[in-house]
Amino acid sequence: MKFEVTILGSASATPVYNRNPTAQLLNCNERFYLIDCGEGTQQQLIKFGFKAAKIDYIFISHLHGDHFFGLIGLLSSLHLNGRIKPLYLFGPPELKEILDLQFKYTDTQLRYPINFTPLHTKHPEVIFKNNDVVVETIILNHRIPCTGFKFTEKKRLRKLIVEKLEKDQVPINYYPMLKRSLDIDLPDGRRINYLDYTTDSAIPKAYCYCSDTKYDERYFSQIEGADTLYHEATFLHEMLERALETHHTTAQQAAEVANKVGAKRLLIGHFSSRYKTLDALLEEAKLGFDNTQLATEGKTFEI
Amino acid sequence: MKFEVTILGSASATPVYNRNPTAQLLNCNERFYLIDCGEGTQQQLIKFGFKAAKIDYIFISHLHGDHFFGLIGLLSSLHLNGRIKPLYLFGPPELKEILDLQFKYTDTQLRYPINFTPLHTKHPEVIFKNNDVVVETIILNHRIPCTGFKFTEKKRLRKLIVEKLEKDQVPINYYPMLKRSLDIDLPDGRRINYLDYTTDSAIPKAYCYCSDTKYDERYFSQIEGADTLYHEATFLHEMLERALETHHTTAQQAAEVANKVGAKRLLIGHFSSRYKTLDALLEEAKLGFDNTQLATEGKTFEI
Repeated sequence: MKFEVTILGSASATPVYNRNPTAQLLNCNERFYLIDCGEGTQQQLIKFGFKAAKIDYIFISHLHGDHFFGLIGLLSSLHLNGRIKPLYLFGPPELKEILDLQFKYTDTQLRYPINFTPLHTKHPEVIFKNNDVVVETIILNHRIPCTGFKFTEKKRLRKLIVEKLEKDQVPINYYPMLKRSLDIDLPDGRRINYLDYTTDSAIPKAYCYCSDTKYDERYFSQIEGADTLYHEATFLHEMLERALETHHTTAQQAAEVANKVGAKRLLIGHFSSRYKTLDALLEEAKLGFDNTQLATEGKTFEI
Repeated sequence: MKFEVTILGSASATPVYNRNPTAQLLNCNERFYLIDCGEGTQQQLIKFGFKAAKIDYIFISHLHGDHFFGLIGLLSSLHLNGRIKPLYLFGPPELKEILDLQFKYTDTQLRYPINFTPLHTKHPEVIFKNNDVVVETIILNHRIPCTGFKFTEKKRLRKLIVEKLEKDQVPINYYPMLKRSLDIDLPDGRRINYLDYTTDSAIPKAYCYCSDTKYDERYFSQIEGADTLYHEATFLHEMLERALETHHTTAQQAAEVANKVGAKRLLIGHFSSRYKTLDALLEEAKLGFDNTQLATEGKTFEI
């Protein structure tokens, strides 16, 4: 099953040096989940060859403009391009008011329904599940309420050892029960133990998205053991004071988070416009956590 | 005096084929006037080497998203980049409510004042003047209230024929009166006629911006004799029915407008996403009005 994320924007605050405000596209089994939507996200989707029409789920972490100013344009374009299938939107409660006001004054009656789920920002919760993935919020610590998102693959059914099943002439109609970890009693009296005829499916992977936040151990338990942890790293550690003041994280701190929660890989992003190049940020994070990569525009990471 | 316009976006409705939603930057004597502000305008400014901080005046023609969805991001970036000088914004009355709601929820207290002038959409009016330019609204005919803008250079003072003034020993303190077309009586009894000692300044030029509108003779008198007329030309004339239905103009009609109002040059833009290339639109307009050019991204036109 495909489980990968493509970075559409890596800038914080304002676009600069060809870096766009934050947005990421998660492909989970060919369903598409957009995470945040800074200005120009629809242009970035086109640039990197994605069809916006394929996105069915959008998650907005918080109401700073660099994370949602592109949303109204994207939703309008979907409408103008003829979308009729529903879209599922998750974000701060006030987001709906902002969108509705603009739909009203632009005289837009959407052809497709938006199912909006307002997010609570005090306690983490499961906000979505389907056959592929479970999505939980992560309670971050920013200047305004902000939630990260944890995407965990659904545990797949056990895999059949078909050769053995056929050799022992286990009737095919019992296969679904075995895949679901059930032992079966055959009419001929034989007891079939699922453990003998199936193997475990792959361990579900988890992608954790943390933006924007200051370093705060209270959310660590929610991102424990992430296979891929995206964590903002707005500043170098020499700017720690500014990071604390603006409720952001330094590259060194992002590495520390990855270490403490036992992440397997760290992606850093949300870079301050003060950095023309990003080498120093990567270097600083790698010092603390070697398996770090820059989450920059157009890169795709398998989770 | 510099009087030129740079095109930042030529797309209608949705961004496509590297065309961005509508925005234009007018440079009048090194003061900068932004006309409309579709999503991604701040990125376009960077791309074409302009400093957003230099813009002091913004004019929004109407509340369709492709003309203003980039405004909130631009205003926010100006704030984040430390602007303190006032910004003058002209647009439909509801625009303020849309901006205020987003400033409220993004917890943004702007460091600079926005002086907002709500535009009336029934009758043309002079909405702005300074030493360089006069701006008037043009009442267009669109699905929602929409105003175009006419920028007319201020008439410059007459030019002194300094050599002659010196030869005839006209005291220098009388020069300003002559420049202002006043005859003077010197203490020595001579009468100095301004016409003998000055030449007329250049005839003021006018730039008319018409987007979006259906063909409607009622606004022709307001754009009479434009030196450069920008007129939307969303469709080819074979799509006339669609143009009428959506209150837009065809390339053939745009040419007809330019002819009827005696424009010196026509720029066409606001191209439908159905056109991958624009040759056919240009060709159609040129058939009716030869001095037509495509108003595409990055092009600068001296007015």
